[in-house]
Amino acid sequence: MAKLHLVIGNKNYSSWSLRPFMALSMAHIPFEESIIPLQRPDTKRRIREHSGAGKVPVLKHGKLTVWESIAILEYLAEMFPDRRLWPDGKAARAAARSMANEMHCGFAALRNACPMNLKRPRKAISLSEEVKADIARIDGLWRDCRKSYGKKGRFLFGAFGNADAMYAPVVTRFDTYDIKVSPESRAYMDAVLATPAFQNWKKAALQEKWVLDDVEVA
Amino acid sequence: MAKLHLVIGNKNYSSWSLRPFMALSMAHIPFEESIIPLQRPDTKRRIREHSGAGKVPVLKHGKLTVWESIAILEYLAEMFPDRRLWPDGKAARAAARSMANEMHCGFAALRNACPMNLKRPRKAISLSEEVKADIARIDGLWRDCRKSYGKKGRFLFGAFGNADAMYAPVVTRFDTYDIKVSPESRAYMDAVLATPAFQNWKKAALQEKWVLDDVEVA
Ligand SMILES: N[C@@H](CCC(=O)N[C@@H](CS)C(=O)NCC(=O)O)C(=O)O
Ligand SMILES: N[C@@H](CCC(=O)N[C@@H](CS)C(=O)NCC(=O)O)C(=O)O
Repeated sequence: MAKLHLVIGNKNYSSWSLRPFMALSMAHIPFEESIIPLQRPDTKRRIREHSGAGKVPVLKHGKLTVWESIAILEYLAEMFPDRRLWPDGKAARAAARSMANEMHCGFAALRNACPMNLKRPRKAISLSEEVKADIARIDGLWRDCRKSYGKKGRFLFGAFGNADAMYAPVVTRFDTYDIKVSPESRAYMDAVLATPAFQNWKKAALQEKWVLDDVEVA
Repeated sequence: MAKLHLVIGNKNYSSWSLRPFMALSMAHIPFEESIIPLQRPDTKRRIREHSGAGKVPVLKHGKLTVWESIAILEYLAEMFPDRRLWPDGKAARAAARSMANEMHCGFAALRNACPMNLKRPRKAISLSEEVKADIARIDGLWRDCRKSYGKKGRFLFGAFGNADAMYAPVVTRFDTYDIKVSPESRAYMDAVLATPAFQNWKKAALQEKWVLDDVEVA
């Protein structure tokens, strides 16, 4: 089989890129990566060499190009069915996909107010009502999901999977901006932050030199 | 098997609701529907009786609730594999999912400037550069996809499927706002607009009495 190649943005900031990286790493699927630093004069052009959509992440596999985080995660689930990136059981699978897709184009208030930034020292900021509503919704989803489906492990559906990959950047945001959640959700966050996959990503992020001023929230 | 029940918004305006309706109808999967009119004082409360995410469409199937358009489409593909809602072949399937997901949270400029409104008389409006870029991207995607994968039918991947369902509201927008696209894309649009599923939806939309003032673009 051709080697998988993941094209991503800088690790400190590129929340979308973290998602497939987490799924690939946690599922022990070998892959190569290339980083295209974001918000530079040649960023769009460089991304467009891989995907006409002009966004990272992009997964390349032989002649095939897959773009959009969720499409990449679905592709991995299909190509590596034994890794169980979606949970067994049609109810759990439907819940996992609903949650993953709610993340995909939801929670705009939270994403704007609290951008992923792994170098930022942990510090609370004041939160608008919209951001608080996003946080409450996510906290409820995680808690309910852990209770209904997560008993056999530390992640949303027990073992680590695509739903966790989609929420991984949110976990970092809640941690970075010192956002209070239920004890169940905090335990879940700690499980994600402690994974070797995330630790590797973060270590590389901390070594990066790029700074995106407009993402820096005091 | 329990009957499928689709909860949707008003047909004239609810672009997200049209997506699973098209997939269900074109795949000849029997279902019931309920309409919750959008932007009324009790809209959120009524949607929340079905889904904590507070958005339509919602699919209910026995005890199971699926929310988010793409998660619903994935659920249908899984439950009714013989309907081939995703195309055969892993390259085609990856392309279909990438395109469907690019639609899911992309093309914001187009969606804001040209809201779905099936009662609006066809008339062009002036378009910003951002909207034109969205149109060019979609036109290119459709044309390339029809050429690479669509030879055996009139839709993106030949037979009607989930990718077509995701783009159906865009087809109506291009038609309503008289947006010029390539002949290949126009032929594709005509195929979608001529489906019995879309004709049924539109007939019902035209009979609705609700008017959403802030969606009406002159
Ligand atoms: N919906 C896309 C979002 C991808 C996205 O917004 N990526 C950002 C970086 S995190 C990007 O590529 N930005 C580059 C640019 O817009 O020039 C996905 O799920 O993959
Ligand atoms: N990402 C969602 C979007 C759904 C959505 O935005 N639906 C609109 C109607 S088209 C809605 O429910 N609005 C009701 C509200 O926000 O109160 C999906 O793909 O299903």
